[in-house]
Amino acid sequence: MDYHAHPVQIYYEDTDLSGVVYHANYLKYFERAREHLIGPTELARLYNEDGIGFVVYKCELTFKQGARLGDLLEIRTRVEQESAYRAVFHQEAWKEGSDKPYVVGEVHLVCVDGDQNMVRMPELHFVSGESA
Amino acid sequence: MDYHAHPVQIYYEDTDLSGVVYHANYLKYFERAREHLIGPTELARLYNEDGIGFVVYKCELTFKQGARLGDLLEIRTRVEQESAYRAVFHQEAWKEGSDKPYVVGEVHLVCVDGDQNMVRMPELHFVSGESA
Amino acid sequence: MDYHAHPVQIYYEDTDLSGVVYHANYLKYFERAREHLIGPTELARLYNEDGIGFVVYKCELTFKQGARLGDLLEIRTRVEQESAYRAVFHQEAWKEGSDKPYVVGEVHLVCVDGDQNMVRMPELHFVSGESA
Amino acid sequence: MDYHAHPVQIYYEDTDLSGVVYHANYLKYFERAREHLIGPTELARLYNEDGIGFVVYKCELTFKQGARLGDLLEIRTRVEQESAYRAVFHQEAWKEGSDKPYVVGEVHLVCVDGDQNMVRMPELHFVSGESA
Repeated sequence: MDYHAHPVQIYYEDTDLSGVVYHANYLKYFERAREHLIGPTELARLYNEDGIGFVVYKCELTFKQGARLGDLLEIRTRVEQESAYRAVFHQEAWKEGSDKPYVVGEVHLVCVDGDQNMVRMPELHFVSGESA
Repeated sequence: MDYHAHPVQIYYEDTDLSGVVYHANYLKYFERAREHLIGPTELARLYNEDGIGFVVYKCELTFKQGARLGDLLEIRTRVEQESAYRAVFHQEAWKEGSDKPYVVGEVHLVCVDGDQNMVRMPELHFVSGESA
Repeated sequence: MDYHAHPVQIYYEDTDLSGVVYHANYLKYFERAREHLIGPTELARLYNEDGIGFVVYKCELTFKQGARLGDLLEIRTRVEQESAYRAVFHQEAWKEGSDKPYVVGEVHLVCVDGDQNMVRMPELHFVSGESA
Repeated sequence: MDYHAHPVQIYYEDTDLSGVVYHANYLKYFERAREHLIGPTELARLYNEDGIGFVVYKCELTFKQGARLGDLLEIRTRVEQESAYRAVFHQEAWKEGSDKPYVVGEVHLVCVDGDQNMVRMPELHFVSGESA
């Protein structure tokens, strides 16, 4: 397996009146997966001790199918380090048992210090994911 | 009119699959109304210059009817200063034309400094609301 | 252990500018825990096949301490069946290793059919939780 | 003015611990603006009477600057009808007094019926916006 996997359960809060997940929420799921990929403790340490935060400067999403209440999604993430300052996360939301992704996206990130100035991205030791 | 009125439009994002507004969102609407009651600019000034933030320490909500997509709610707020440190906001969500509130609540607030220590509540000059 | 335990990881999305979790989000965490207590699959089945949904008609929350980025909370839930129509969920948010809860609440629920009319609560076979 | 303008006030709920607006929220602001462009009442009528809903199938966002508590944004929207089935909304978030946009995006929409099948987009009579 060459991607990081992070499970996301779909709750009432995630859906809208159409019965499927509200589109903006997939950006949250992708971000949760990135936090787990870096590690929640390491992410908090970077922020609290080194004053380094991650900022999305660009993203692109294609919505192919809508997830529903009770669905268990798996967010699959691959990272591409573009430079010392930029990383691109290729992310997909899959439903257990489906043969194609529900949502496909690309999220571009930089790191900033406390004054929102861009800084070198810290060396990240990604933790392995858990399957949904 | 002895209450502050703040309009809230119900969008797709506010609803869940049941077709009505997701219950937790009313806490957001009540908070938006409180921010307008204090004044968004004054609130930001208190936070950025004086390091003072408002913190909810208790709340109670009763849900009587569910608002739907396209509804325009009016949040009606009355404030009761309990002490130099505490204020209770009595808040209701009304729909245009309805003869009873959709949601009724009480939100208790204190002020804290940057270290999350309780401080005296600043003297507030409430701005008047706009009707929905 | 006489309560259902459900883990909630705190992400960027959960916090506000004060650095702690935005107050309304605890209602979401409590609801996620209730969904797991009933079982996400059973909950979806009840909704899709029997047309039965759960509706919060009252809640009360006391906020004692603010959770932060990277915190892992455990939502502890006890249910009290008040009548054939009503259940009260006593819920608390604990942080790993803390000696008192961060948030304590009570959430009152009823069941409704597709027309938002109250119906008997289905017999629930609660699933056991997982510790944080 | 050749765009639709919709004001969005930034509240506590919109920010995260970094002090600026959480990135996914701009998709919500853009959607609110689109709802006002169509008209909240007309949108609800299309959904409730004609069973027609709007679905985002693709979006792209570039984040240039972060809005903060107390900021008043103006969402500027231009629509391009790509075909009888598709429309592209070019949307930007501007802060009052700034000389460049904070966020620039493109959101592609289709219409679906109650079974999530694509249908012709209804003829839309866009309402004019209000300046921030």
